[in-house]
Amino acid sequence: PKVAVLPGDGIGPEVIGAALAVLREVAPDLSLEECRIGGCAYDAEGDPFPPSTQAALVEADAALLGTVGGAPDSPWNRLPRPQRPESGLLRLREHLGVFANLRPVQVMPGLEHLSPLRPEIAAGVDLLIVRELLGGAYFDPRRERGEEAAFNTIGYTRAEIERVGEHAFRAAQERRGAVTSVDKANVLEVSELWRDTVTAQARAFPGVTLNHEYVDSVATLLVTQPERYDVLLTENLFGDILSDLAAVLPGSLGLMPSASLGAGTGLYEPIHGSAPDIAGQGVANPCGTILSAAMLLRYSLGRSAEADRVEAAVRTALREQPTRDLGGTASTQELTAAVLRAL
Amino acid sequence: PKVAVLPGDGIGPEVIGAALAVLREVAPDLSLEECRIGGCAYDAEGDPFPPSTQAALVEADAALLGTVGGAPDSPWNRLPRPQRPESGLLRLREHLGVFANLRPVQVMPGLEHLSPLRPEIAAGVDLLIVRELLGGAYFDPRRERGEEAAFNTIGYTRAEIERVGEHAFRAAQERRGAVTSVDKANVLEVSELWRDTVTAQARAFPGVTLNHEYVDSVATLLVTQPERYDVLLTENLFGDILSDLAAVLPGSLGLMPSASLGAGTGLYEPIHGSAPDIAGQGVANPCGTILSAAMLLRYSLGRSAEADRVEAAVRTALREQPTRDLGGTASTQELTAAVLRAL
Ligand SMILES: CC(C)[C@H](C(=O)O)[C@@H](O)C(=O)O
Ligand SMILES: CC(C)[C@H](C(=O)O)[C@@H](O)C(=O)O
Repeated sequence: PKVAVLPGDGIGPEVIGAALAVLREVAPDLSLEECRIGGCAYDAEGDPFPPSTQAALVEADAALLGTVGGAPDSPWNRLPRPQRPESGLLRLREHLGVFANLRPVQVMPGLEHLSPLRPEIAAGVDLLIVRELLGGAYFDPRRERGEEAAFNTIGYTRAEIERVGEHAFRAAQERRGAVTSVDKANVLEVSELWRDTVTAQARAFPGVTLNHEYVDSVATLLVTQPERYDVLLTENLFGDILSDLAAVLPGSLGLMPSASLGAGTGLYEPIHGSAPDIAGQGVANPCGTILSAAMLLRYSLGRSAEADRVEAAVRTALREQPTRDLGGTASTQELTAAVLRAL
Repeated sequence: PKVAVLPGDGIGPEVIGAALAVLREVAPDLSLEECRIGGCAYDAEGDPFPPSTQAALVEADAALLGTVGGAPDSPWNRLPRPQRPESGLLRLREHLGVFANLRPVQVMPGLEHLSPLRPEIAAGVDLLIVRELLGGAYFDPRRERGEEAAFNTIGYTRAEIERVGEHAFRAAQERRGAVTSVDKANVLEVSELWRDTVTAQARAFPGVTLNHEYVDSVATLLVTQPERYDVLLTENLFGDILSDLAAVLPGSLGLMPSASLGAGTGLYEPIHGSAPDIAGQGVANPCGTILSAAMLLRYSLGRSAEADRVEAAVRTALREQPTRDLGGTASTQELTAAVLRAL
């Protein structure tokens, strides 16, 4: 099988390096093809999602991504929007048609002390965020920017809601059987459509319970009663905010993976950003990317046994050699070496 | 001076009862006129923001609000949107022209143990959220709801951003001098306009530092490094989510007040919702409402000394008699009695 590897910007190359070392160990038969995305692709080819990368993806069974984007004062941020690093990522997601972004978040037993939450609350974090990834304000044909006013529209169709809802209900069947759908239906019409659609869809999943909560309430309950949540289903922008919030509960954004699924090639990437402040220093936490590679093995290649092995090895390595973001001292390489040893 | 008092629904009447007892104690000269808002106003007068309430507001120097809204399965939620309780609140805000919602959030020294965060992180929470309250997706003339699709537009004009930005910069001058403007400028044009406007405006406040952060990043940093933030300036929907998140960090949404300011009559309300599950039991935490009354004394009536006394009394009472939401046992009345004693 072929995997397209897109290191991207900032700490992307470092964390991808770690994940590749792990993939070579557990799945030596994979053919891994590196290609460019984001700011570095713009610098090299004048396009943050260049034709060379699009060509490489045609043959790929899955794609593993690092991170994209520069520092706040990066010249990339002054380019016209379609040429900025983030546009490369959004176009990649659209190109692959990956409308369902799965972000599992768990405080690993024994690692509660890493959480910003009190340990007894942190112990309850074991949830999956299913974020719609190709709709809403992110992909808005009506967007407008004038000198004196600007507009972005959050729009959804019933079909867009159903296809991502399906992922949430199916995932809940494999977990604790509870979907919480997130919306702001007391204010937004688009949330009403979201709520109505998900409610109707739930009838096809009698083993799953569905409830609805407002996005502001979910933000508070994630930090006070996270054990309430099994699967959280949400639109794109709410999902962006809530999944970052949830992902930091285990102690660091650096720990958490994600899988973006659609009709064809899946896309796997850590949740954290490009962290330009620590890029090139060899101190980034590669666990989110290594665990994304594990999700790739499981969802795109059907290799659950290898995925399980990688996940167990990461847990062991984290106990032995926590990285800096977790209050430890391990470098990216030391943590990676510990994962390889544990394999 | 005249204060319009709007208890509203759920626990609203209970927490307002507590705040009135405190106001009668510290400012016996106030004339307090009760009027209806929300679901109870719809039930009594067929309108969640009835003409009788609008009439009462004409003469009022300030308005003190409890909470509005019913349980998720309330028949109110099946009314046409303009008749629902929340519409009453949104119309009230619009009617009063209160475009700047100030939500101070502080973990009180000695009460760190109430926070869901680890105490050493919680100790750093001392911030003010300035939320734009009359724009964005909340007040969208383009809103559309069809059978198969729905749309809500986040729109802002430069003037709308400047008038709320002014409040943030001025507040920062009285605090630690740092404004963090929240946006999603890597994806949204409306955020770009927000960023450009606030950046230009900052030149008029040379003593204040301004920086810009993405909303997803702010959500994570609020729970991991809250000490970074002095004043957070944000649009309506982001502000809804972030201010609830921030407001729970001291231990309970029940603790936190807010002031909504504009050209004329100010509106003061606790941050929490109507909590129909505990309504009528006499166990609601009235501190958010009592502290909102303190903000009313300070901002609308210029009575800072009385406001300070109320705030100190609440701190004392909370140490002696924490309510249930804080892991204590005090009823609404017991807490209120403790506040009155401390005065
Ligand atoms: C970089 C940005 C466009 C992206 C998003 O908002 O989707 C990121 O925050 C994420 O969550 O993957
Ligand atoms: C009740 C609702 C309309 C309101 C809002 O979203 O503004 C509430 O959540 C708040 O934050 O005051």
